[in-house]
Parts: sequence; C-alpha cells; structure tokens
Amino acid sequence: MSIARLTDTELSDLLTRHPDWQLRADGLALERTFKFTDFNEAFGFMTRVALYADKADHHPEWFNVYNRVEITLTTHDAGGISGRDAAMVEWLAGVAA
Amino acid sequence: MSIARLTDTELSDLLTRHPDWQLRADGLALERTFKFTDFNEAFGFMTRVALYADKADHHPEWFNVYNRVEITLTTHDAGGISGRDAAMVEWLAGVAA
Repeated sequence: MSIARLTDTELSDLLTRHPDWQLRADGLALERTFKFTDFNEAFGFMTRVALYADKADHHPEWFNVYNRVEITLTTHDAGGISGRDAAMVEWLAGVAA
Repeated sequence: MSIARLTDTELSDLLTRHPDWQLRADGLALERTFKFTDFNEAFGFMTRVALYADKADHHPEWFNVYNRVEITLTTHDAGGISGRDAAMVEWLAGVAA
C-alpha cells in the first residue's frame, strides 16, 4: 500500500470533470466504455493505450469485443483509485474525444 | 445464421486436440487464458491476434490485465462455435505454445 488513494474530494472533482467515467459499485475502480467504428479503430486505440500504460507502468483492466473497449482503472498498490488512475483518465480524455 | 455451427463430433475432436481450451458453461463459446511474463509480452501477443482477427474478419471477445489474456471465441452469425473459431484455435496453437 505504498501509493495514496485519491481523497473523496479529489475523486469527486475527477468525476465532475470527466462525467463519461463511472465509479464502480464498490468504489474502488473507475469504468468507461469506448465505442469505435470497427475493430481496426478500436485496436488502434488499444495500441495507443498500451504504449501509454507500459511507459507509465500502470496497466488497465480491459475488455474488447469488435468496436467496443471497456476500461477499468484501479491501483492495486493503493487498494483503490490513485493519482495514476487520474492521470490515465486525463490522458484518455485527449485521445478519445 | 448463415454460418454452420460445428457438429458435436467436430467440437469434441477440437477440444481433444486442444485441451487448453474450455467449453463455456452454455456450450456456445470456447475459452482459454494465456499467461505471459509481463504486459509487454501480453500485448505483443494481442497485436498478433488482432492482425489475424482483422484479416479473418473474425474477432475474439477478450480481457487483459497485465500479463493475463482471457480469450472467448464464438460466432454470432452461427449462434455458437463455428469453423471460424476452430480456425482461430488452430492458429493460436502455433502462436502461444
């Protein structure tokens, strides 16, 4: 548990700025579904996320079928949502507008 | 429903030859979990699968977290498991031995 979780205020600010993200029912992760025109476009997006994730050493849990990508962000070392998840949310806002 | 489902015999032959695949509880899909050393290797594998999938126009349902990739194969136009899924199983056997 070496990484700090976001405070309630930080988390609610983040969700206000990014209403396309949902808090998971247990409050420990953020979720968002992305839709694209086809698999080619969806996987192109996933490749961009993968490069970001590997550089940031912070990896999503994600599911894909055809043109849909469901991303779940949480930080295991924080036992919940941390600044690393917030950073990825901010970065993703610039990628999939 | 323009694509034929595998017969019971074809399906059981496939599973005998590829025991690392499981039949989903409803019998309509095949499932396998792949483990790699890290995310970089897992996503490299996913990229190979994506290129195959897009060329074959047959796409997996898949989930990834870090070094784990869970693949589900089914053919919506067949309402179950078809030769397209069998072809991907055979192809994957040569990729992730």
